[in-house]
This record gives sequence, C-alpha cells and structure tokens, in this order.
Amino acid sequence: MTVGKKKSKQVRRDALNLPAAKFFTKVNRLKKLQRAIARLSPSWQACIPIAAIIVLVWGYAAVAQTAPAPTTEEQLASLKVGMDTMWVMVAAMLVFFMNAGFGMLETGFCRQKNAVNVLSKNLIVFALSTIAYWAIGFALMFSNGNGFIGTSGGFFLWNVADNSPATGDAYQGIFSALNWTGVPLNAKFFFQLVFAGTAATIVSGAVAERVKFIDFLIFSLLLVGIAYPITGHWIWGGGWLAKAGFYDFAGSTVIHSVGGWAALMGAAFLGPRIGKYRDGDTVAMPGHNMSIATLGCLILWLGWFGFNPGSTMALDPNAIAHIALTTNTAGAFGGVAATITAWLYLGKPDLSMIINGILAGLVGVTASCAWINIPNSAIIGTIAGILVVFAVTFFDNLKIDDPVGATSVHLVCGIWGTLAVGLFADGPTTGLYTTGPAAGLLVGGGFGQLGAQLVGIISVGGMTVLLSTIFWAALKALLGIRVSAVEEAEGLDIGEHGMEAYTGFVKETSLDNRIEGGYGGYAGGSGGRTTKL
Amino acid sequence: MTVGKKKSKQVRRDALNLPAAKFFTKVNRLKKLQRAIARLSPSWQACIPIAAIIVLVWGYAAVAQTAPAPTTEEQLASLKVGMDTMWVMVAAMLVFFMNAGFGMLETGFCRQKNAVNVLSKNLIVFALSTIAYWAIGFALMFSNGNGFIGTSGGFFLWNVADNSPATGDAYQGIFSALNWTGVPLNAKFFFQLVFAGTAATIVSGAVAERVKFIDFLIFSLLLVGIAYPITGHWIWGGGWLAKAGFYDFAGSTVIHSVGGWAALMGAAFLGPRIGKYRDGDTVAMPGHNMSIATLGCLILWLGWFGFNPGSTMALDPNAIAHIALTTNTAGAFGGVAATITAWLYLGKPDLSMIINGILAGLVGVTASCAWINIPNSAIIGTIAGILVVFAVTFFDNLKIDDPVGATSVHLVCGIWGTLAVGLFADGPTTGLYTTGPAAGLLVGGGFGQLGAQLVGIISVGGMTVLLSTIFWAALKALLGIRVSAVEEAEGLDIGEHGMEAYTGFVKETSLDNRIEGGYGGYAGGSGGRTTKL
Amino acid sequence: MTVGKKKSKQVRRDALNLPAAKFFTKVNRLKKLQRAIARLSPSWQACIPIAAIIVLVWGYAAVAQTAPAPTTEEQLASLKVGMDTMWVMVAAMLVFFMNAGFGMLETGFCRQKNAVNVLSKNLIVFALSTIAYWAIGFALMFSNGNGFIGTSGGFFLWNVADNSPATGDAYQGIFSALNWTGVPLNAKFFFQLVFAGTAATIVSGAVAERVKFIDFLIFSLLLVGIAYPITGHWIWGGGWLAKAGFYDFAGSTVIHSVGGWAALMGAAFLGPRIGKYRDGDTVAMPGHNMSIATLGCLILWLGWFGFNPGSTMALDPNAIAHIALTTNTAGAFGGVAATITAWLYLGKPDLSMIINGILAGLVGVTASCAWINIPNSAIIGTIAGILVVFAVTFFDNLKIDDPVGATSVHLVCGIWGTLAVGLFADGPTTGLYTTGPAAGLLVGGGFGQLGAQLVGIISVGGMTVLLSTIFWAALKALLGIRVSAVEEAEGLDIGEHGMEAYTGFVKETSLDNRIEGGYGGYAGGSGGRTTKL
Repeated sequence: MTVGKKKSKQVRRDALNLPAAKFFTKVNRLKKLQRAIARLSPSWQACIPIAAIIVLVWGYAAVAQTAPAPTTEEQLASLKVGMDTMWVMVAAMLVFFMNAGFGMLETGFCRQKNAVNVLSKNLIVFALSTIAYWAIGFALMFSNGNGFIGTSGGFFLWNVADNSPATGDAYQGIFSALNWTGVPLNAKFFFQLVFAGTAATIVSGAVAERVKFIDFLIFSLLLVGIAYPITGHWIWGGGWLAKAGFYDFAGSTVIHSVGGWAALMGAAFLGPRIGKYRDGDTVAMPGHNMSIATLGCLILWLGWFGFNPGSTMALDPNAIAHIALTTNTAGAFGGVAATITAWLYLGKPDLSMIINGILAGLVGVTASCAWINIPNSAIIGTIAGILVVFAVTFFDNLKIDDPVGATSVHLVCGIWGTLAVGLFADGPTTGLYTTGPAAGLLVGGGFGQLGAQLVGIISVGGMTVLLSTIFWAALKALLGIRVSAVEEAEGLDIGEHGMEAYTGFVKETSLDNRIEGGYGGYAGGSGGRTTKL
Repeated sequence: MTVGKKKSKQVRRDALNLPAAKFFTKVNRLKKLQRAIARLSPSWQACIPIAAIIVLVWGYAAVAQTAPAPTTEEQLASLKVGMDTMWVMVAAMLVFFMNAGFGMLETGFCRQKNAVNVLSKNLIVFALSTIAYWAIGFALMFSNGNGFIGTSGGFFLWNVADNSPATGDAYQGIFSALNWTGVPLNAKFFFQLVFAGTAATIVSGAVAERVKFIDFLIFSLLLVGIAYPITGHWIWGGGWLAKAGFYDFAGSTVIHSVGGWAALMGAAFLGPRIGKYRDGDTVAMPGHNMSIATLGCLILWLGWFGFNPGSTMALDPNAIAHIALTTNTAGAFGGVAATITAWLYLGKPDLSMIINGILAGLVGVTASCAWINIPNSAIIGTIAGILVVFAVTFFDNLKIDDPVGATSVHLVCGIWGTLAVGLFADGPTTGLYTTGPAAGLLVGGGFGQLGAQLVGIISVGGMTVLLSTIFWAALKALLGIRVSAVEEAEGLDIGEHGMEAYTGFVKETSLDNRIEGGYGGYAGGSGGRTTKL
Repeated sequence: MTVGKKKSKQVRRDALNLPAAKFFTKVNRLKKLQRAIARLSPSWQACIPIAAIIVLVWGYAAVAQTAPAPTTEEQLASLKVGMDTMWVMVAAMLVFFMNAGFGMLETGFCRQKNAVNVLSKNLIVFALSTIAYWAIGFALMFSNGNGFIGTSGGFFLWNVADNSPATGDAYQGIFSALNWTGVPLNAKFFFQLVFAGTAATIVSGAVAERVKFIDFLIFSLLLVGIAYPITGHWIWGGGWLAKAGFYDFAGSTVIHSVGGWAALMGAAFLGPRIGKYRDGDTVAMPGHNMSIATLGCLILWLGWFGFNPGSTMALDPNAIAHIALTTNTAGAFGGVAATITAWLYLGKPDLSMIINGILAGLVGVTASCAWINIPNSAIIGTIAGILVVFAVTFFDNLKIDDPVGATSVHLVCGIWGTLAVGLFADGPTTGLYTTGPAAGLLVGGGFGQLGAQLVGIISVGGMTVLLSTIFWAALKALLGIRVSAVEEAEGLDIGEHGMEAYTGFVKETSLDNRIEGGYGGYAGGSGGRTTKL
C-alpha cells in the first residue's frame, strides 16, 4: 500500500544538515533572549516557551535519525511553527494575487490598442521578479552585511547556512535580519519575493502605452535584483535606516514609494504619450475597460489583507485583526474621501478616482498599520484619498504622463504614509505595542519620529531616483526605450506582440477608416478619436 | 539590529487594560460553563480545557508585566486562539472578496451604458458599509440590550469593555452575544462587517440602471447602519427571535432576505426601466458582459466557502468540512436544476439562469448548512434552483423590474432556505449536532421548528419592508431617487459619472447614429437598439 | 441567550458512531505504526504523538457522552487535526477557484461568438463534477479494492465506515488509501473533488467552439464519475501503479495528462473548426479577450499554490514552503522560456504563449514538486515552456484543432512532468525526503524510476484514450457531438443558449453585413473576418 502522495510527510529541509554542534554552542545566547522576552507584551509571552523550544526541536532533529517520543514542549513548538508558516504562506498567496489586481487595473486604465502589451508586462514581470530575487535580490537585501547592503551571499538560496525556524539569538545563519519570524527559510523567501514583485509591478502602469517591451523587462530585472534590495536592506535588512529609528511596517516606503520613484523616472525619461499635452491643455485619454479596472481594485484591496496583516509574519491574533481593521478603514475612508473630493473638484464622482482613492488609503496606511489606532487610520486614509485627486493634476501640470496614476497613488501616498508614522504612531507606552516607533507628533509625541521618517523618505527616494536614472539612461542609450510614433499611434499590441486584445469587436479607429475613408491614418485617427469619447 | 517589522509581535490589545479583578471575581461563573460543557458533543470537548484556560491566560496577561514562563495549558490556549483567529480572518477575507463577485455579476448583467455606475456603486458600497457599521451598526446589533436592539454602546469600537477572546461565562464585556467565539474583538467585528457589507451589495443590482448614485449611497448607509443591525440583533445579537427558537446559521434571513427585501422595495419605489414592460410584454434587456458575470458567480461561490463554513467562527474541523460540503452540494444542484428547468421551460440553457441557479442553491443552504446532511443539501439546492427560474418570471409579472434578479436569488431563496431549516434540520439527537434547531418536518420532526422559522421570516421581512419604505420614501421626497428619462436613455455612466466604461469600442447605439443619421438621439436609439439584440 | 450560531460548535460527525470496540481491538496495530514512525524524517517525528493520540481522542469521544477533562496529549491532537484541516480546506478553495481561471482563460482564447457557450461549460462542469464524484467517483477511486478499482462502496458518502481523522494503522474504514492524512473524511472528499473537477475542465477548452453543449455535459459526468477514478485509483488509491513504484505527487499524470488525453480524443473525434486548416495552412483564429485570458492565467497560478503545496494534505511547514517555491519557480521559468522561444521562433513575444508557458511550467512541476530541489524546478519549467510552443505547432500539423492549447499544456507537459520525476527526483537518501521516488537519472540515479514513470504514462494514457474513445464514440452515435455548420458559423452562443455575451457592442461580422450588404452571411463573413484581424 505504498501511495505516491503518502510520502510527502517525510520531506525534510536541507538546512537541517548543518552540524548540530552549531546550534548548541550558542545556548548561552538564550540568556539574551530571556531578557528580550521580558520586554514583550504580556499576552504573547504565553507563546515564548513555544518559540524558544523550536530551536531544540529542530536542532535535535538534525542529529537524531531515530528519535525518542517528542515532549509536550516539542509538540507545542512544532504546532506553532506550522501555524505561523500557514499564515505567512496564505498571506503571501494573497499578495501574489495582487499581480492580477495590478494587471487588471493598469490594463483597464489604458487604451484597448495597448491592452496586450500592458497585460504581457504585468504577467511576465512576476516571472522575472522570481528569477531576479532568487538569483541575487534576496541575498543583497537580507543576508548579513553592513549598513548599506547584504554581503554574506545566499544567491539562488544555494547551500545557505540557516537554521530557521529558530528565532532570536538562537538563530544561526546568514539572514539574521529575518530571525524574528519562526518559519522555514523558504517561507521567508516566498513572502519577501511577492513583496519584491509588487514594487516592479507599480512601474508598469506609469510607463505604459509607449515603452518598449524589452526595456521594461530589463528594467524590472534591475529593479528587483539590485535597486529594491539595496534600499530594502537599509530598512528591513537591518541596515542603517533601521538603526536610525526609521519605521515602515509593511512597506509604504520600502515597496510603494520605491516603485513610485522608479515609475516617476520612467515616465519622465519616456516623455508623455503623443497628444497628451496639447496647447497647454491635458487631453484625457480614458481607459478602455472600467470593469476589469474595478475588479483589479478589489483584488488589490483583498491582497492588502495579506500585505499588511501578513507582515506580522507570525500568527499573532491581536495584531492580525487590528491591522486588518486599520488597513480596511483607511482604504474605505480613502475611497469615500476621493469620491467626495472628485465630486466637488471635478464635478462628478469619477470611477477612476474612487478606485485610486481606495488604493491611496491602502498605500497610506501601510507603513503605520500596526502602530496606530483605528480612528487615526481613518484620518490617514481620508487625507490620502484627498491627496491622490490633486496629485493627478499635479503631475499633469509637470507634464509627467502617468497613464494609470501610479505615481499619485504609490509615490505620493507612500510618502504620506511614511510620514504618518511620525504623526500618528501610538508610541510604545500606550499599550498597542511595546517596541516600535516613538509616539507621533499629533498624538502627544514630539518631532523625533517624524524626523527619522523624513530622513528615510529622502534617502530612499534619492537612492532610487539615482539608480533608476542610471538604469533608464543606460537602456535609452543602448536600446532606445520608446517605441516609434507610428507604433505608438497604431498601438503597441500589434507592434510589440503581433496580436490584438479584442479580436472581433469593432473599434472606433477602424470604424473611422471604413466609414469615412480614414485618410488620416493611425496617428491622427486614433489619438483624436479616443480622446473625443 | 532593531528592525521595523520586528516589533509587531509585541502589539497588545487595549481591551486587556481592564482591571484584572473583573476577571477573577467571576470565577464562580465557570461552574455554569462546566455544566454547559457537559452538553457539548464529545469530539469537541477535547478542546474545552483550551477554551477555558484562555480566560486565565489573557486575564493574567493584564496584571503581570513581567511574567513567569507560561504553562502548557496557557500555551495550548494561545495556540487555539491563534488558530481560530486565522480561520475567522481568512473566512472574512473570502467574504470580503464577494464584493468583487457581486460587482462583476451585477455589472455584467446590466447594459454597457450603465457599467461605470454599477461598478461605482458596488465598489464604494463596502467603503460606506465600513463606515456605517463601525460607527453604529455593530454596536446596535451586538451590544448587550433588550430583545429589540443593542443598547450598551460600542460606537466606533471606542473604549469598549470587552475581554475577548474569553468565552462563555468568563466573557466580560458589552458584546455578550458574541461570547461563544474565542477570537479578539477586532476579528469578530471584521467578520461581521464583511457580512453586513454583503447585505448592502444585494440591493445594488435590483435598483440598477435608473437609481441616482447619491440615493444609493445614502440608502446603503441607512441599511447597514440601522435596518440590518436591528433585525440582525433579533437573531444573532441575542434578541427575541433567537430566544423564540428561530435558527439561521449563516444568514439566509439575516443577510440575504434582508438584502432582498430592501432590494424589492427599491425596485418597487423606482418603477421599471423605460421600455421594460411594453404592451403587456416583458422586453428582454440582456446584460452586456457575460464573461465578467460568470467570473462574478465563481467568485461568489468561492466566497461562500468563507460565508458558511466561516460562520463557525472557530476552527472546528468537522463542522467546517461538513458545511463546505453541504454548501457546495447545494450550489451544484441549484445550478444543474436551474439549467434543466430553463432548458425545459425557456427552451435553452440560458447562462444567466445557470448563474442564478448556482447562487440560488448557495443562498438556499445558508441557513441550514450546519444542521443538515449532504443528501438534504442536494434537495434544498435543487428546489432553490427551480424556484429561481420561476421567480424571475413572477416578479416580471408584477412589473417589478430587477435587472439582475437579486430579489429572485436572495429574497425568494433566502426565504426558502430559512424554511428549509424547519424541514430538513437533523435534530439535536441525531449526532450531527447536540444543540440547535429541532428536527425538521420532513426528517421526522413536527411543525415546531417550521413555525419558528415562519415567525422569523415574517417579522424580519415586515421590519425590513417598513424601514426600507421609510428610507426610500424619504429619499424620494428629499432628493428624488430616479435619474431623468434622458439620462436613463443615454446611460448613467455619462450622466452620473461623466465617463464611459469601454472607450474605444463601437456600440450599437452610436453606430446607428453614424450610419443611419441617428436623428432620434439617445432616447430612441439606445432603448430600442439594445432590446433588439 | 440562545443564539442560533452558537450551537455550531457542537456539530459532530456521524462516522464516530462506529462501535468504540472497533477502535481498541486494533491497538496492537499501533506497533506497526511505531515502526513506520522510525522511518519518518526527524523534524516531523515531533508530531507523531499528536497524530497517534488522535485515534484515542476520537475513539473515546464515541463512547463517552460526559467526558472527563481531556489530557494535554488529547488537546495537542485536537489542535493538530484542526490545523491540518484548515490547510486542506484553504488549499481546496484555491483549487476550486481554478474553475474561474480555466473559465476566463478558455473563454478569452475563443471567439466572442462562442463566449457564452464556453462560459456555460466551464461554469456547469464543476456542478456536474460534484454530482458525479459524490455519487460514484470518490468511491471507485479511493475505497478499498483491488489494484484496478475501489470495490468497497462509499457511494454518496452514505453510511460509510471511516474513523478519520485517525491515521496509519489506527485508521478503520473503507478509504485506507487516504489514511495518511489526519483530517475528517469530508475534508478529504472536498479536496479530492476539486481535483477531479480540474480534470474535466481541461477538456472544455480543446472541444470548444463546435461541441454540442449536451455532449460535453454527459462526457464530463462520465469522465469524473468513471474514467478519472479508475486511473486515479491505480496511483493515489493504492492500486497497481502505486505498488509498481510510480510517483506523481500532485497530478501531472493523475489530473493533467488524463484531462489532456480526454481533450485530445475529443478534439480528434470532433475534427477541426470550419476554416481552421485551409490549403495546407493553419489559419489563426485569435481569442476575443486577452484581458480575461490573462486574468485566468493568474488565477490558475494562484490556484496552483493550493494544488501542489496542498497535496501534502497536512500542515507540514517545510514541505509547504518548499513546494510553493518549486511550483512558483517552474511557472516563472516556463513563462520566460516560452516568451523567449516565441520571440525567436514566431518573431514576437505572443501573449498567449507567455500564458501557456507559465501554465506549462506549472503542469510540468506538478508531479515532482515535493521531491526536487529549486534549481531543478527551474530546469523543468524551462523545458516545459519551450515544449509548449512547439507542441502547439505539432498538433496543428496533425490537424488536431485545440482552440486553447489544452493538449499542449496539460497533456504534453503532464507527460514531461511525470518523466521529470525519474530525471530529477533527489532520492530518499539526500535529505529532502526519506521515502518517495528513487533518485532520478540526471541527479545520479539510474533508469529505474524513469522506467516506472514511463509505465505509468503509457498505461494511464492507454486507459484514458480507450475510455474516452468509448464515451465520445457512443455520444457521437447516439446524439451527434458536433453542432451544425450554420450554427458553428453563427456562433454557439445563439444556437445553444439563445443569447450573446457582449450585447450592445458592434462586432466585425455584423458591421460587414450592415456596411457592405453582407451577402456572405454568417459563415463566410465570420470565418474570414475574424482571421483577418
């Protein structure tokens, strides 16, 4: 009765083949851990013995092939690792699904003649992110190193020293910056991978409708393999910003503003789409499919419940429930605020503004979601929702053409969200958390935390602008980054991919040609017609 | 090595700041709990010590800032709370995703000229629900009060007394009706919030294609903030219907028929769309995008695995697996029954009937899913699938125009599902459950449970009709609830939102105008053309 | 304070009504279990006491209605069953959601005139699968029997003897082949059901755009009720292939190649679509909606995180994280490899090839995902991504018309993935697992495992071809399987379902008719026009 699937229970990690001695020589480090425990909030101290015993269970596992019956403590530790891993994996899957959200949102916001191109970019980008982050990104971001970058290797996760799920001082390996979460290394990598993929996806929308496909692919590899890991190391990899007291819980800066800066530079290097800015006016180029754009927004909202609550990387019930609420509240208030703002400012409740308002609220609360109370999450979301409406106009006034508003949502609200930590964080003495950012300016703290946040915003922004500039400039010099004017007018779907997205449907452009003779060709016909509607 | 994300583990709930004394003075209440335990099904008695100890762990946590090592019992309790919370949160996320399902379904079933409007309603409605339910809905529904409504406050969840995850008699706080689930208060709120949002979403479809955007927004706030919590309190908030022996496991009545009644009143107050009923005939106005409608159906089906199994609000493995099966079986049989019925009755297997049949089966089994065996779930689903086909005709004969069939699905099958408890419930002596509804009429019980279900259906229906009438009538008097005939003919997308959903595609109406001169303008062209197809 | 939902915690499984004596007379069987434990990988031996105690807890539960307080071991066992069940159910929900993925993918790849038909097939097929698999499929596949088929009944899961979640030798019941997973029987069934549904869905795409709706429904019932369970029994049901050392972790053969063979036979029996092969050339018939096709691909990718890691059917943190990574890596490399191959071979990076490349990689790694290291998963995915591009051409050269490439993805890459076990499996002595396939040919093993895999591929393929031929031939003789040429030209949406998918949009065909007089009617107009674009 040997069944193929039956044997999966005996799968074992290679990492455990580390000499057991390496685990036990460090037992005296457990004393440091004990002191750390005393600082923990009491309700979770109950789990400490579980976390502590994990070291012993897993270390022991490495030496004893025929084991005695495990103790109760070992079984508890094993259950805890299982639970935490399930949570991290489920959250990572939700974040992975955000690729579908970004894909639908960005495609829906673009014109139908470029739909295949936008879809292709958003689909292949996670595949490329997987390769780049596996090969070098994760190693540069999280391996032990200096304040600037990880220097201990770990490329391709190959033969790495790592005794996860051991935690704290009991952890032995090259990814010490992730030693606070008690899950297997592969789970840590998978969770960080889906985050890295998000950063690259943000760029896609801003450079849409005129960037060459090959350039976007190469830029994505460079962003996820090099630029994102560097600034990520500063904050989540134990680098200089973390030591400087900068706090970003789930990535308003690490993910969103980094993606936003890279997107901004891309849009700036490419220049606006043909016909976008004419005679000082901004010509509306409405998206072709609001149904999938709205679906994309809801998928992203769902994904954020993995993004923010999942960033606990441990099944902490209070934290998860609290963060889900601050996240959802900010998104809701962002959406309502943007709706009202658009209604008053633009005259009608524009659907694309409702969508961007929700996303703005979600981006805005990402940095602070674990450290603020729910009313303040409503305030943060409201301000983000208002900001995003004006940010769209702002960038258009700068003649920076971002077809989907990615910079308005991710860069502007990413910055706002990072600042919000310095404004609204409850502070470690209020009961919401015991270590973390100092109390924010508006809840009785001083300017201290706000200052640290500003340093982070500026330094991360500066580095990302610098690297993005180098990447885009190099690509422009070597390959050219923009498609020809004829291809842009015809649509990138035919030019770059040799196919169209909606075969069988009559489009405005082709109808012009058939009914009126269509002398104007693609350039005039398409540009003029689309904006007329 | 202070990393931003590291500190999240120490997040702690405010509620724990309640004086510890309040916990321990009630220890004698544990005796009542012991007696309750004796009534539990044996397979889950194994977890009782875990549940019981939770009180002690969490109570203890409130007084001891520097704690001794937790006992095994405390660790077990902590793991149990973690597991239950993960299940509740994951289920809530699935239910949240139903917003995307409703959005795609309703939009696909409407005409393209109203797509932006339907999308906008379905997107913003959850944001509004969040605000209304956080501000007052949850407090009215679940706070301790009388049989009619909660009266102990808890608005904005602000400064509430609540020692969740303590359960049973050990629970101390204002939300006693939810003391049977051992998860943090924020998780309870989030789960109930996504349910409340569902009720509002149901209304959206029935009033589509002619309601003013602003009126729908205000009605949603009133429904989620006031009407839904009142009838919800009667049943799930420990009110008079619960005491009267009425049972509704996951909301055939609480959610679906309440949403359905509100939708029915909206459709009745608005009147039918222009051209829908002409010369005694019902004119078909087919939806514009069956692809996204089908996607919506599958997303809803997925969401129901959170909706029904998640209503355990605890990780009870047998209950979850059993409920998932009854839910899925009813949906499957509903779909097949509606397909066959439509084939025989309408001549062809209409896709919109397959979709509505599946949803009908799912709605139908929602009240009874935990208390029936699988064959009976097949019967319930089959009858629901047949019912929905005829219900569509029924409402059309009444000249109540419901563009997406929301009343047929949610109201008719919600009523059917509520009755089904009185017909098919296994009874507490059969082994499926030990306390719950009495055995149903068709499985050897008497008319008792059926009578209680009828009382619930009538009373909840009456109250919802009353409140909906007040809301819609007030809105009609104050703002007017229907767009102008010109706007309706042109489409609400332009009139309400100033944009269209599918820019760049040629629509039938505009083609008429361009080829044939189209003198008739929007009203004649659109109305006539669309129904011709 | 009797609340309806409160009682769900006491739900209890019927199966527990088995006489308790049956459990305890077999205690001596536990000795066998102990020997099995010694073979387990050490890191998971820690959970053995939990698994072992489950028998006692659940057995005991059946006799004692008023129980003493459960022991720590019993509580640990209860938590372990809860965790494993949650993982299995969540994974099953992800696999269920793949129905939406297949639906969107296949619909998007077909022409708009057949969209309602493809959607209807993909929606109803899971309902039919539910019925067929519940009625007979699961019983034939998993009940105890001989090497060929299950013979112990279990139809409709009615009154089955089964003491799940007891595992190993402590298991008592008719589904011994599933005794390695410690979850309730209903959870086992639900997980296997969603897998069975996948197999039927694969067929849908290959027979699209010309098969009669009724024939597809009947074929699906036969496939899921009879053919799939037979070959499934051989491998996962403890049949002769399992005993022969054939290994397929998550179903490259059991699901994908079985679906692929059935699809191939369907496409062959039906013959190509009218106009597909003309004068020796293959005429491109591009899909009508690449947006939903791409969405479908991403939903499938997400679903694969339930499909592969979920096939552990236990919350094994290392296995789950490892499998998620091999799965994702293969998908990513498959997508990139297909993109590059299509770029070089076809001239442009065709989006449908990117999509099929990702799916090819995912199918390719499905059999081996638990038994290979990550670099080898990259190789497997890369080869799958290259294969799929050429497979599409290959089948076109055979004049086998598969509108969505289902045979190229699921059959060809399913075979490749099954072989890959024999090429890349780490072997049970390397640390990744302790029992499972022998080391593969390319990692230092011999031809042994490869031979066993070949035997499985050929025998499963032969049986599926045989049964599919019988089914399709019988349907052809009895009902005819192909719609009329007129209906095919007009589109199956009108002919089979009496409706169209995108009402209100102008399609190329109807525009031809209106502008140019459209003498050619549907047949010429549609066929010619669609391929011209």
